[in-house]
Amino acid sequence: MNIDLIRAAAARLKGRVRETPLLSSPFLDQIAGRRVLVKAECLQHTGSFKYRGGLAAVSALNPAARARGVVAFSSGNHAQGVALAARQHGAPCVIVMPADAPAVKIANTRALGAEVVLYDRRRDNRDAIGASLAEARGLTLIRPYDEPEVIAGQGTCGLEIAAQARTEGIGTADVLACCGGGGLSAGAALAFEAEAPGLRVRTAEPEGYDDMARSLAAGRIEANTDTPPTVCDAIVTPRPGALTFPILARLAGPGLSVTDAEALQAMAMAFHRLRIVLEPGGAVALAAALFRPEALSGDAVICIATGGNVDASLFARALTEGGAA
Amino acid sequence: MNIDLIRAAAARLKGRVRETPLLSSPFLDQIAGRRVLVKAECLQHTGSFKYRGGLAAVSALNPAARARGVVAFSSGNHAQGVALAARQHGAPCVIVMPADAPAVKIANTRALGAEVVLYDRRRDNRDAIGASLAEARGLTLIRPYDEPEVIAGQGTCGLEIAAQARTEGIGTADVLACCGGGGLSAGAALAFEAEAPGLRVRTAEPEGYDDMARSLAAGRIEANTDTPPTVCDAIVTPRPGALTFPILARLAGPGLSVTDAEALQAMAMAFHRLRIVLEPGGAVALAAALFRPEALSGDAVICIATGGNVDASLFARALTEGGAA
Repeated sequence: MNIDLIRAAAARLKGRVRETPLLSSPFLDQIAGRRVLVKAECLQHTGSFKYRGGLAAVSALNPAARARGVVAFSSGNHAQGVALAARQHGAPCVIVMPADAPAVKIANTRALGAEVVLYDRRRDNRDAIGASLAEARGLTLIRPYDEPEVIAGQGTCGLEIAAQARTEGIGTADVLACCGGGGLSAGAALAFEAEAPGLRVRTAEPEGYDDMARSLAAGRIEANTDTPPTVCDAIVTPRPGALTFPILARLAGPGLSVTDAEALQAMAMAFHRLRIVLEPGGAVALAAALFRPEALSGDAVICIATGGNVDASLFARALTEGGAA
Repeated sequence: MNIDLIRAAAARLKGRVRETPLLSSPFLDQIAGRRVLVKAECLQHTGSFKYRGGLAAVSALNPAARARGVVAFSSGNHAQGVALAARQHGAPCVIVMPADAPAVKIANTRALGAEVVLYDRRRDNRDAIGASLAEARGLTLIRPYDEPEVIAGQGTCGLEIAAQARTEGIGTADVLACCGGGGLSAGAALAFEAEAPGLRVRTAEPEGYDDMARSLAAGRIEANTDTPPTVCDAIVTPRPGALTFPILARLAGPGLSVTDAEALQAMAMAFHRLRIVLEPGGAVALAAALFRPEALSGDAVICIATGGNVDASLFARALTEGGAA
């Protein structure tokens, strides 16, 4: 896993992924006490950065593997990213989803051309279903983060940030990334190491799911133990990835965590001040920039707003609970 | 009023206005029956394209006039656009607003550094207040649309669309613009005439406030007569502008209009499919693209999503009334 893989992915993705804008508002700067720049990956195709990794992985397959197809496990953003990438390459795509996933996510994944295989969370073994499908049809499994091509695809977001920070005149800053398994954080960290050494990745996680922050502090992979309910479903993972953790242990600063209430407040701020739609898991980096100023240093902070796939009812709740403006 | 004025404005605005992205979603394409591209001006500084016109007008003033300052009437997007532009140029700025304007809009305009002068809608004469302020302090009045530099500033949005359409491989298309007095529509029409003759402006208005559509059909300026309540407050103007109408009579196609319910539905679609926040008046162009397909021709349509300054309660209403996904 290195910068060459990211640059190669960037060449394949050029003109297909959207170069998302770096947004800002004087009102957010005032709250954070420093300049805040928000990389709006919620505006990416399929509504999250996950399309980058999905497209990098599918486009890296040889023609025979592509013709056989791909399989992924996900009820969320990775599913839609892989499904769209597969459709664009004419690759059959199977997404294994829990039967109790929101109907709209199942419908959307199907609408993107994927075959959705539903399983019962309590009764079925998801991995066994995927493995038997992969074997029977010769499908390639695309893991959500512990996969070099996926990390490379997410790293293209880091390359864009490196160039955009230069344009904005920012040489040194913390770059806060909403973190599940660490694919985006690791890819961005490698991109910064090569192209913007003054930028440093800091992971942002929901409280109770700060496995990456604790692992970075301990110097070894630690799993989440207590797992309280959270609205940040998109970035709830049991432990850091085996590929991603060593990269972040070497390159990232200390991890940050925020409460669900802070994530909802950040969603409301993004609505009022940036006019973008964030899901809770896509808002934790902005929440950390706004509500953990003492944990950051420097005149500017860059946050990656990773996704915007959220139900209307939860979004309305964020607007109500997150404050008027 | 001509393309040279727009190009000169573009040179002054370069690096200050945000080049807003052209967004899309296969789900919207399916509803509209053609490719839909959405120019997301809600992501512009201050949340609407109005910052372009405000900045063009303020930056065109000579140093003495700039030092004396500017005045504008507006309770909405024009106020914020002018206020930010004035602050960036160190120009004093007075915004004359109705005392019953939403408290948050008054607070935001003040937070952008403007002096807000409130008047009583029933008792006071707004124009007299502005005129006496302008005379006493030597302020320059910046009109919201019937002002060449403002039209030039809004025209820079058209220049961006012309370039972005080329990148997308679109040679011929209707470009739907949410229309109040016609400043954006007229500026964009002049930009397309010079740089993308295959693009044609079509105005989009709320039903009951379709003065531009009726004026274009009649070949002369016609005012709104019946003025029902509408949620599209940002684009409610009594009649087309004296400067803007002749430009649109020469260059624009027939005008379109949509209902309030359709504007709210378009807001919900933009939330779910593009992850952007639109206000009702900023969503009528998208509504026309989605719900008036028979009035359009060609394989693609471009809509300008002009603004995203909306109260949380009205946005929540759009999500509820506008449908689940």
